Amino acid sequence: MIQGILHALIMRQLNIGMIGGGTVGSGVFHAWDRNGGLMSSRLGVKINFQKVAVKAFDEPRPYPIPRSLMTTDWQSVVNDPNVHVVIELVGGTGIAKTMALESLKLGKPVITANKALLSAHGEELFAAASRYGANLYYEASVAGGIPIIKTMREAFVGNRFTHIYGIVNGTCNYILTRMKLEGAEFADVLADAQRLGYAEAEPSLDIDGFDSEHKIGILASLAHGFWVKPKDIHVEGIRHVSKQDMQFAGQLGYTIKLLGIVKQAETGKASARPRVQVSVYPALIPNTHVLANVNHVFNAVFVRGDVVGDTLFYGRGAGKDATASAVLSDVADAALDLKHGSKDRVPAFVPHQPAGAVMPIGEAISRYYVRFSVVDRPGVLAKIAAVLAASKIGISSVIQPEGHEGQSVPLILMIHDAPNAAMQKALAKIAKMPVVKAPPVMIRVETLE
Amino acid sequence: MIQGILHALIMRQLNIGMIGGGTVGSGVFHAWDRNGGLMSSRLGVKINFQKVAVKAFDEPRPYPIPRSLMTTDWQSVVNDPNVHVVIELVGGTGIAKTMALESLKLGKPVITANKALLSAHGEELFAAASRYGANLYYEASVAGGIPIIKTMREAFVGNRFTHIYGIVNGTCNYILTRMKLEGAEFADVLADAQRLGYAEAEPSLDIDGFDSEHKIGILASLAHGFWVKPKDIHVEGIRHVSKQDMQFAGQLGYTIKLLGIVKQAETGKASARPRVQVSVYPALIPNTHVLANVNHVFNAVFVRGDVVGDTLFYGRGAGKDATASAVLSDVADAALDLKHGSKDRVPAFVPHQPAGAVMPIGEAISRYYVRFSVVDRPGVLAKIAAVLAASKIGISSVIQPEGHEGQSVPLILMIHDAPNAAMQKALAKIAKMPVVKAPPVMIRVETLE
Repeated sequence: MIQGILHALIMRQLNIGMIGGGTVGSGVFHAWDRNGGLMSSRLGVKINFQKVAVKAFDEPRPYPIPRSLMTTDWQSVVNDPNVHVVIELVGGTGIAKTMALESLKLGKPVITANKALLSAHGEELFAAASRYGANLYYEASVAGGIPIIKTMREAFVGNRFTHIYGIVNGTCNYILTRMKLEGAEFADVLADAQRLGYAEAEPSLDIDGFDSEHKIGILASLAHGFWVKPKDIHVEGIRHVSKQDMQFAGQLGYTIKLLGIVKQAETGKASARPRVQVSVYPALIPNTHVLANVNHVFNAVFVRGDVVGDTLFYGRGAGKDATASAVLSDVADAALDLKHGSKDRVPAFVPHQPAGAVMPIGEAISRYYVRFSVVDRPGVLAKIAAVLAASKIGISSVIQPEGHEGQSVPLILMIHDAPNAAMQKALAKIAKMPVVKAPPVMIRVETLE
Repeated sequence: MIQGILHALIMRQLNIGMIGGGTVGSGVFHAWDRNGGLMSSRLGVKINFQKVAVKAFDEPRPYPIPRSLMTTDWQSVVNDPNVHVVIELVGGTGIAKTMALESLKLGKPVITANKALLSAHGEELFAAASRYGANLYYEASVAGGIPIIKTMREAFVGNRFTHIYGIVNGTCNYILTRMKLEGAEFADVLADAQRLGYAEAEPSLDIDGFDSEHKIGILASLAHGFWVKPKDIHVEGIRHVSKQDMQFAGQLGYTIKLLGIVKQAETGKASARPRVQVSVYPALIPNTHVLANVNHVFNAVFVRGDVVGDTLFYGRGAGKDATASAVLSDVADAALDLKHGSKDRVPAFVPHQPAGAVMPIGEAISRYYVRFSVVDRPGVLAKIAAVLAASKIGISSVIQPEGHEGQSVPLILMIHDAPNAAMQKALAKIAKMPVVKAPPVMIRVETLE
């Protein structure tokens, strides 16, 4: 406390040490170079770049960083007594963790954009931040251009979060948008996205949903006050979404988006541990909803609070500039917190009491779109409907395009609210029927109501 | 400073005094009653309601307020030594101003949802806040459910704001949405909106754009660091938008929305005073843009920052609950600022140097949609086009529905970028032509590019 007060009295300049001088790092430096003066005047604290640790002085970077600031020794940045706050932008969960912990141990606040690090080691880092009285700021870790973490923790502090639906992976949204607008197949658009630099050569982190998993885990944790572990999050990617499904969804008035989903489950008992669905999967959402109109690489997070109602936040999720904006927002908070000796003003993480738990996906209830490949023969729909009815699963609509007797044709069913486990069980039964010619494709439907 | 530190040491509970116990006030109380415990645990400060000044104990309110908290004497709230912060929710620019000033004079931070008060007396109130070392918080004054003020001041502190487009009046958006979806006329939808309680019996504040003017003036001031006076804002409402215009706009791929607009003008000289367009008018925006899909009473603010790029924030703009969420956000900031002795952490207003100026609307450049009522006779388009060409105004497309020789028919022109004054002058000339049968209808086009 006293140290904080003393610090506050002398705090007129914040010296930044940054680790990482590649694309994002140079983006942060460039944004500061352009707007640092304005930012300093807005904050009443001079923001200064003290030192930048880089992999190599001449590594490719979109904006230059002055040679005089650069070093290849990250420890000299962390240990520099003139460095007040450390920005970690190296990525990964290995050395990045060491860098963050070393900084925190010295009482230096850490700013990070590293969602993988938080997802894997969040609890350990938050504990270290608390122990050493230094804060951890991570606005840039989820949807850089969207200040969703500040919004949830500060602007919506008076709310309980009943629903969160996030389009938090730009690569997937780009692919799904083009599949929709061009009637193209997944594999073709992915190849093109890779050529254009919108998807990695090894695209699994994005298209199999793991990047979304990291981000939605952070938002779920902040919303519900217990740290959600990656292993508890049900994750499906978009590889199985076909052009056909996109088209049938369109006919039904829906768009398919990859969503990170956090839903507070209804619990009968007030005394019970709150249970929350935390998942990543592609879902049909109504075309008329504003979330369905978030296209290309843009991200959006739809948040429903019990007081504020429905809200949505839209912007670029990644890229050096959107990320730089979020890092500068954290720099500002760190500067003000140091200036005022209020390092723990908004702690890195605040657990709620009682702690909640993630609901197993089998118990999660949703609607479903199911596409079967069936033999075009009278009575097929009746047989499938009978299996569903036996599991108390209701059909809300059917699309059965005309085909030729004996051919394999698609049959699309829209299914009323049903628990996931019951649905999976019924589909497994149907898949074994001789008239069913391929494994059924099941995509959840989120009405956002 | 010392006082702040002493306060910080003892600050474990924030006592709220609220003035106004009607719809919004009872909404705030109700939200606190439900979520105050959670909020206190998130903040590490107990939030307590000390006293509520009401017009009458039995005035109608959607949620009850305990009789023991109520008083009809607002001064007893402000002067209560146990009240740490005052929430002003009475509205208007008269007594509300006195209440705010009295509170600030006592060093008590003020939280207000009163955009009219800020619009009219913002500078005086900010000066008082600064003089008496108490802050003024006003997140709820613009688009309650959207934390746009926190976002602009904190999350986007590293950005220059090149463009802001806000749908900030729910009544107008409701009317325009229904005109579009139902093909209905303005007057009919307005009457229905009044019946349903979405529009006031005296609707001018909303439909003539004045409420939007108050809000966009606040956002423009925060974005550009000089206080924008209402008299400098060009304001047009939506009375002149007809069903026809909505339909023709639709044919051209556009939707008409009432927008508050803040655009940084290009100035040739770096040394010149920055100039900003600040306006409220209905505009055609592309159907494919996410802003065009903001419907009914919802608000949205599109913000383009020079670092973050394009962003959009969506939520309910008014209503007791959305407003309550914003007020609680300010309560949280006030609580943390008092706890940490950092009352001026984010000052009520920070001017930039050099101060900017509002650009006269005549110099503002935009595209236009113009609907003429003309006699259906060969050569009419050529005559109108000649007048525009003489003013160096270019036509980008034309819709001329078929009619009968000699009849009065609509002629729709889409006009390329042109200064407003030149456009108005050319239209005045055209209006005098004998073949033109009614005053031309001009609606600006914002491509949001």
